[in-house]
Amino acid sequence: MNQASCFNSMCRSRTILNHVTGRWGGLVLGALGDGTRRYSELRKQVDGISEKMLAQTLRDLERDGLVTRRQYPTVPPRVDYTLTAAGAEIAERLLSLMRWIETNVAQIEAANACHDGTRAAEALVVPHEGALA
Amino acid sequence: MNQASCFNSMCRSRTILNHVTGRWGGLVLGALGDGTRRYSELRKQVDGISEKMLAQTLRDLERDGLVTRRQYPTVPPRVDYTLTAAGAEIAERLLSLMRWIETNVAQIEAANACHDGTRAAEALVVPHEGALA
Repeated sequence: MNQASCFNSMCRSRTILNHVTGRWGGLVLGALGDGTRRYSELRKQVDGISEKMLAQTLRDLERDGLVTRRQYPTVPPRVDYTLTAAGAEIAERLLSLMRWIETNVAQIEAANACHDGTRAAEALVVPHEGALA
Repeated sequence: MNQASCFNSMCRSRTILNHVTGRWGGLVLGALGDGTRRYSELRKQVDGISEKMLAQTLRDLERDGLVTRRQYPTVPPRVDYTLTAAGAEIAERLLSLMRWIETNVAQIEAANACHDGTRAAEALVVPHEGALA
């Protein structure tokens, strides 16, 4: 069997990487990294996610064995979600990434400003005499 | 100033998270985690990426100060890309995630098979006598 590689588009590991990063997978796993959450709590914590995308994301993560769904026989039914051991391993790595970004957001903002300033300055530059001779 | 949070859709950290995970950002940063790459090498290593998406991804990462682009005055011009210190911090976390997935892909495949089997079994289940009474 060949070694699994996320760089190979045909490898199953690429699909899993897409599930756990993607637009919403990482945020849902990150939210569950702090503990069990009810559906409505996830919807609130992962700001901007739609009902449809949250349901789809949870289904994918459940199918990958990263999240366990529990339904309680109450009225109305209560449903909550918990990371499996595998999900916790992934969430830990995602949270490390998110925390690094949150801590260093000012540095990246400065890079953006510098980059955009450089581009503006390049557009304004007047060729020096030698270049015109 | 409020604390930065990737969970807040209006926070700049969410945009950066989308750049460094997203469909291609993580793979490009991961590829550069092993060292400087020429454009053509990245195109080959990140299997499945289009010319357009690679160019766009590299532009976003360069603007965020995570990747440095160098152009050499050769004919034809040679261009290569290297991680900045910030890019290396992020790539390290992404590679940890990718390696975990690659190592555990069989476990996740098994979860998929189990989940799909359970669903199939649920669909086939015959209600017990009590339920029919």
